[in-house]
Amino acid sequence: MGGVSTVERVPKQDRSRATRQRLLEAAVACLAEHGWAGSTVSVVAERAGVSRGAAQHHFPTREDLFTAAVEYVAEERSTAIRALFPRGAADRRAVVAALVDLYTGPLFRAALHLWVAASNEDQLRPRVTELEARVGRETHRIAVDLLGADESRPGVRETVQGLLDMARGLGLANLLTDDAGRRQPVVAQWAALLEQTLD
Amino acid sequence: MGGVSTVERVPKQDRSRATRQRLLEAAVACLAEHGWAGSTVSVVAERAGVSRGAAQHHFPTREDLFTAAVEYVAEERSTAIRALFPRGAADRRAVVAALVDLYTGPLFRAALHLWVAASNEDQLRPRVTELEARVGRETHRIAVDLLGADESRPGVRETVQGLLDMARGLGLANLLTDDAGRRQPVVAQWAALLEQTLD
Repeated sequence: MGGVSTVERVPKQDRSRATRQRLLEAAVACLAEHGWAGSTVSVVAERAGVSRGAAQHHFPTREDLFTAAVEYVAEERSTAIRALFPRGAADRRAVVAALVDLYTGPLFRAALHLWVAASNEDQLRPRVTELEARVGRETHRIAVDLLGADESRPGVRETVQGLLDMARGLGLANLLTDDAGRRQPVVAQWAALLEQTLD
Repeated sequence: MGGVSTVERVPKQDRSRATRQRLLEAAVACLAEHGWAGSTVSVVAERAGVSRGAAQHHFPTREDLFTAAVEYVAEERSTAIRALFPRGAADRRAVVAALVDLYTGPLFRAALHLWVAASNEDQLRPRVTELEARVGRETHRIAVDLLGADESRPGVRETVQGLLDMARGLGLANLLTDDAGRRQPVVAQWAALLEQTLD
């Protein structure tokens, strides 16, 4: 192929990538709002303004679409939280608050629907289990980096893990009602306990 | 009515109560195994060996049955955990472990399915929100009593709440895989941090 077709190929790839992103973002929003039962490739394609055929070209199955969507948005959130603290452990309380925020928005809600559906669906379970492990490892790595936690010291690794478990539990407590009023003093208190352990 | 009908009434009430309990226990098991979508009054009635009519006499709607079931089993678990520690804060680490256990069994799994379904179903949401608040308050009260926590001291209330949030997050992490190996050192570390605050 010559120069002209190369020039044409680039915008086509861009368009394809943009379509893929629109589908992934629509899939997470759909899962957060309607749950697994209400989330199909067709519903997402319509929401994203993409034909069903184009959606299936990108994601042959429903499982492909929704696991890719949760992973994509989790990566976006990871990049965003790292960008918030470019110099690392400047203000640990702010880092803890930002980590907890990862679990109280639409991404967590979407991931929760996917996890719960996976617990009863054999087709979904292995993929979501693998995804959860990968996202969990990455979140742990971010927490350790941003908190400046030295995991070679006894108890530090478990303290950071416990913090992320608490954040997950706080996300669940926020599912049906706005729990921010109760959550903030709890997070402040455990952030103080965490600082004692890390210093 | 005379003495004879009183004598007959007692066993009938017992039978009715036994039927109700069988339905409630079957409902929690059904919810834990099959999720909300797979949990109907008919499925539970069959599992409990009760006619559909008898089940509907006790629980007119699906929402009645499943919210009552989660509440009943939560009360059973509360009674059981109090009975484990008749003298209160004897061994705080053991109390923490028992509290975390509340969130890693079939009751938590059933409650999780109900919460997640409630987040998308208007008919279910107010009832589950109210149930969650009631069960949450009772669990907090048990934790305070058994840990011998003095909530008049600053930070103590938030520390106990954070512990229960962590337990909830650990329950979620245990949904798809057996997470006990990772969980135990995390719980041990947080129990140690908790003890520092309570003493």
